[in-house]
Amino acid sequence: MIYLDNSATTQTDPEVAKVMADVMVDVFGNPSSLHGLGVKAERLVTGARKVIAQALNVSPEEIFFTSGGTEANNLAIRGVTEEYAGRGKHLITTEIEHPSVYEVFQYLERKGWNVTYLPVDSQGRVNPDDVERAITEETVLVSIMHVNNEIGTIQPIEEIGRRLERYPKVLFHVDAVQSFGKIPLLPRQAKIDFLSASGHKLHGPKGVGCLYIRKNLHLPPLLIGGGQEQGIRSGTENVPGIVGMAKAVVLARQKGDAFIRDSANWKEAFLRQIQERLSSVIINGDVSREGGAPYIINLSFPFLKSEVIVHALEKEGVYVSSKSACSSKKELPSRVLKAIGRSDEEALGSIRISLGRMNTEEDLMRCADALGKVIPMLQQVMKVHNR
Amino acid sequence: MIYLDNSATTQTDPEVAKVMADVMVDVFGNPSSLHGLGVKAERLVTGARKVIAQALNVSPEEIFFTSGGTEANNLAIRGVTEEYAGRGKHLITTEIEHPSVYEVFQYLERKGWNVTYLPVDSQGRVNPDDVERAITEETVLVSIMHVNNEIGTIQPIEEIGRRLERYPKVLFHVDAVQSFGKIPLLPRQAKIDFLSASGHKLHGPKGVGCLYIRKNLHLPPLLIGGGQEQGIRSGTENVPGIVGMAKAVVLARQKGDAFIRDSANWKEAFLRQIQERLSSVIINGDVSREGGAPYIINLSFPFLKSEVIVHALEKEGVYVSSKSACSSKKELPSRVLKAIGRSDEEALGSIRISLGRMNTEEDLMRCADALGKVIPMLQQVMKVHNR
Repeated sequence: MIYLDNSATTQTDPEVAKVMADVMVDVFGNPSSLHGLGVKAERLVTGARKVIAQALNVSPEEIFFTSGGTEANNLAIRGVTEEYAGRGKHLITTEIEHPSVYEVFQYLERKGWNVTYLPVDSQGRVNPDDVERAITEETVLVSIMHVNNEIGTIQPIEEIGRRLERYPKVLFHVDAVQSFGKIPLLPRQAKIDFLSASGHKLHGPKGVGCLYIRKNLHLPPLLIGGGQEQGIRSGTENVPGIVGMAKAVVLARQKGDAFIRDSANWKEAFLRQIQERLSSVIINGDVSREGGAPYIINLSFPFLKSEVIVHALEKEGVYVSSKSACSSKKELPSRVLKAIGRSDEEALGSIRISLGRMNTEEDLMRCADALGKVIPMLQQVMKVHNR
Repeated sequence: MIYLDNSATTQTDPEVAKVMADVMVDVFGNPSSLHGLGVKAERLVTGARKVIAQALNVSPEEIFFTSGGTEANNLAIRGVTEEYAGRGKHLITTEIEHPSVYEVFQYLERKGWNVTYLPVDSQGRVNPDDVERAITEETVLVSIMHVNNEIGTIQPIEEIGRRLERYPKVLFHVDAVQSFGKIPLLPRQAKIDFLSASGHKLHGPKGVGCLYIRKNLHLPPLLIGGGQEQGIRSGTENVPGIVGMAKAVVLARQKGDAFIRDSANWKEAFLRQIQERLSSVIINGDVSREGGAPYIINLSFPFLKSEVIVHALEKEGVYVSSKSACSSKKELPSRVLKAIGRSDEEALGSIRISLGRMNTEEDLMRCADALGKVIPMLQQVMKVHNR
């Protein structure tokens, strides 16, 4: 099996799984308990918080553990609209956000908020000028993802952060789920107020993530109860998950630079091959090294169906994705691909190939071979079918 | 170490930890992915859902996985007040709920809801007549826990469920976090609409729980996004956690009856010993086999401080709790003990001893010995101190 669906989720690093199993059995205390086993568990959480904080160059008290990226995004956006509603009723986001951001804004629109969905260019990039132009006196929040989960485009977060400095009442949230631990983004440097991250996109565990909340900002909790995480996120801490996420971050820091450098080379070689062999291919997103995540490749084969390509590749032992996992079972064309100007036919025939630290160059080359075999075959079938 | 704080959290069964580590490394797919590894992961979730559903004798489609008991309680209560607000503005709960229920009601009061907090008798039990008397035409929800987390009292849930049948517009939520997998409670039989459960109180993993939602009832999601869990709980499924919780339920079904029978015997022997050796002890909660969970023991030693007893026992190698873990770091007397009529002095000198499946009779007897040694010593110190 060649697994190339790492933007959907990654294999948990065996080292991470080992640490977690050990914590579950040996340091199983509740961090809120007063006795030694509670204290030990609390220390593990404190240590993990420091690791995450260091990776973002922020204070440990600014890191709040959640059950994952979705909860982090919900906590930030819904929290801001509850806490800072007095500032106005206008929100800004983009047309290409992940559903855990986009659908929250759709919900907030139904609740009476005005939302501006910024367009993106043909490479999937937001224009910082557009962000600034969209701001009104009523604007409370701007939420823009760092790396797009479907096409890998990197947004100009630092530039947008600089622009937003001129509007001190406008808060800035960044969904960094697809970049955290891979492509550096420092909240303080980029003037970010809230940043979401997840464990399982990084060879860490599912069921854990975190939200950075800039000091002196307050969010009301989404989960109310025992008052854990400074009262902002109640519920017994998922100690093994938190430790596992931190371990994944440590491993990413050790091996991450090599992964980014290597995958950038592999991606370029792969795209050259594909373009040579398959003249019908359309490459979605920004393929430049500065503008696109090297670990996400999105291709369109017009008039073919994503699901059919995915299953044909699977028969060749290659696992890729039809758009994002979260929405892969819906039959609509990708909202992200529509936003960069793809037709329905182009969008419905797209696949996402996403690399993780466990992949090799060989994996990607075998994927190219499989595509080279499968796509002409499927196109032949379509031709006969449509005759 | 003798760990007697199992109501705060339990040791993850090594079999559970093993299964989870295997899933993390081997079946790491995203259940939303179309390819084989996604399908495998989805099957694991489906299988786990069936296990939980069978344990509750409900349909798998009525089980919704969450990040834990706190999220399940929040989802049910906040969801009902959002979805069924048209029915009225009155809610009923008790004075002795867990913070993840109680604090949600406090929040809802601030948002304009009227909440009746039912009192309990000296054993910590709600009177079903009181429940019925509290109902008005405005009542939307009754939320009552099954087993109290501090004193172990079992509430007459089935009787309350029967009474509520006469009020078809009033929904019934039960926080079963402390009883699930230990003391049977079947939602259909008890006419329960929503039931919350957690993994880590049952030698399962932290970071996972579930909510039973009766068919044909709808709740708006607390976490919005990719539409997982029938749209009611978005976020990539915590596959290893979900599988781990199901494994814990399987193990509990295999070993649970023996645990309940044994711990009831041990508890009685323990209480006899303690009463013989320590005349000042007050036993909190219902100690009858029908009325109290055999795995929770709550004792008060008036004029001593909970934290001091906990630390003194820890020196003897025995880990117990000062009231519930969630609130153990606050210095206020337990709300639950106040509700059963304890004075501040009695409440502030209470400890909770809670058993899990890993404990033996020997553990509890050594706890009795430790208390027999420690309590007179601490009382002596207090006497000298107060002279």
